[in-house]
Amino acid sequence: MSKPALIIVFPNAEDSELIIVVDILRRAEIDVTTASLNDEEYITLSKKTIIKPDAKLSDVESKDFGAIIVPGGHGVNDILKNAKLGGLLKKYESEGKIVAAICGAPYIFTFHDVGKGGAITSFPEKRDDIKAAGYEYSEEDVAVSKNVVTSRGPGTAFAFALKLVELLKDKETADKVDRAVVHIQG
Amino acid sequence: MSKPALIIVFPNAEDSELIIVVDILRRAEIDVTTASLNDEEYITLSKKTIIKPDAKLSDVESKDFGAIIVPGGHGVNDILKNAKLGGLLKKYESEGKIVAAICGAPYIFTFHDVGKGGAITSFPEKRDDIKAAGYEYSEEDVAVSKNVVTSRGPGTAFAFALKLVELLKDKETADKVDRAVVHIQG
Repeated sequence: MSKPALIIVFPNAEDSELIIVVDILRRAEIDVTTASLNDEEYITLSKKTIIKPDAKLSDVESKDFGAIIVPGGHGVNDILKNAKLGGLLKKYESEGKIVAAICGAPYIFTFHDVGKGGAITSFPEKRDDIKAAGYEYSEEDVAVSKNVVTSRGPGTAFAFALKLVELLKDKETADKVDRAVVHIQG
Repeated sequence: MSKPALIIVFPNAEDSELIIVVDILRRAEIDVTTASLNDEEYITLSKKTIIKPDAKLSDVESKDFGAIIVPGGHGVNDILKNAKLGGLLKKYESEGKIVAAICGAPYIFTFHDVGKGGAITSFPEKRDDIKAAGYEYSEEDVAVSKNVVTSRGPGTAFAFALKLVELLKDKETADKVDRAVVHIQG
């Protein structure tokens, strides 16, 4: 059994990144909870899809998740300094749990010193800001630095999700989901 | 200006395929309407994400869309013989509009003789059924046969969506979205 995963949802989160990660983790039979950061019941994503998250963050944040995952999207700009999110990210990092973000979301880390000194990647336009904040910048599709996992954007979301499956469960499960879904076999 | 696109949503549609197509088409500034086939207000997708489609199909089906697009997912099995959907698919095909499906959804075509005689692809497990129904089976990630566009699964959903952008708008726009989102550039 792998520990459950918490995925943070907020207005204008990037549709594909969020849904690909939820989809792949659930295919790997990892228990996933999507939780609205500010307790919204419905959330309009970046490309206008309206979803109903599984829970409000305040109702589930004390649960023992093994990972916290933040999707990107232009809504990231509205939550960069969110103290509740920053506190949770720091807590997970200090407890050795997985702290993961993709696209614009790794930039949030710089406002809370999450993964400081390690190598992180992000959507390329955030590169200079992240480097200026004292991080090593990786150009890999998925960067793993201790318990901090980051990735670049919608096109790397499958690889990001599969890496999370590998870390939360095992490589065999990740490979199985990869073959079935991403690299479809004849 | 490209014509708007209609995307059919139904219970247990495949989360990633639906959302990737919506996301990419909207990035290309194509007017997209997600419409619930049986007029449900909220729909639970295959991997348990709950979405609120933009419209009920009965409210928008008479609008002049340039394409009808059907995602896959195990809910496909419940709508194979849906007369409303079958009728719409045939109507779009006969009018020379784009008729598109991915994963398990191309199998729906065989129940309504959509794209009959042409080459279509699908999630591999549907191959034999599709061939037995009198279709040429393609192993391409995206197959285009006259105005019928088909694809294989979550891992080919970006390529499928980008082909739809190319056909509904132009290659230049598809390449621009591809570079920005899928093949992320430094």
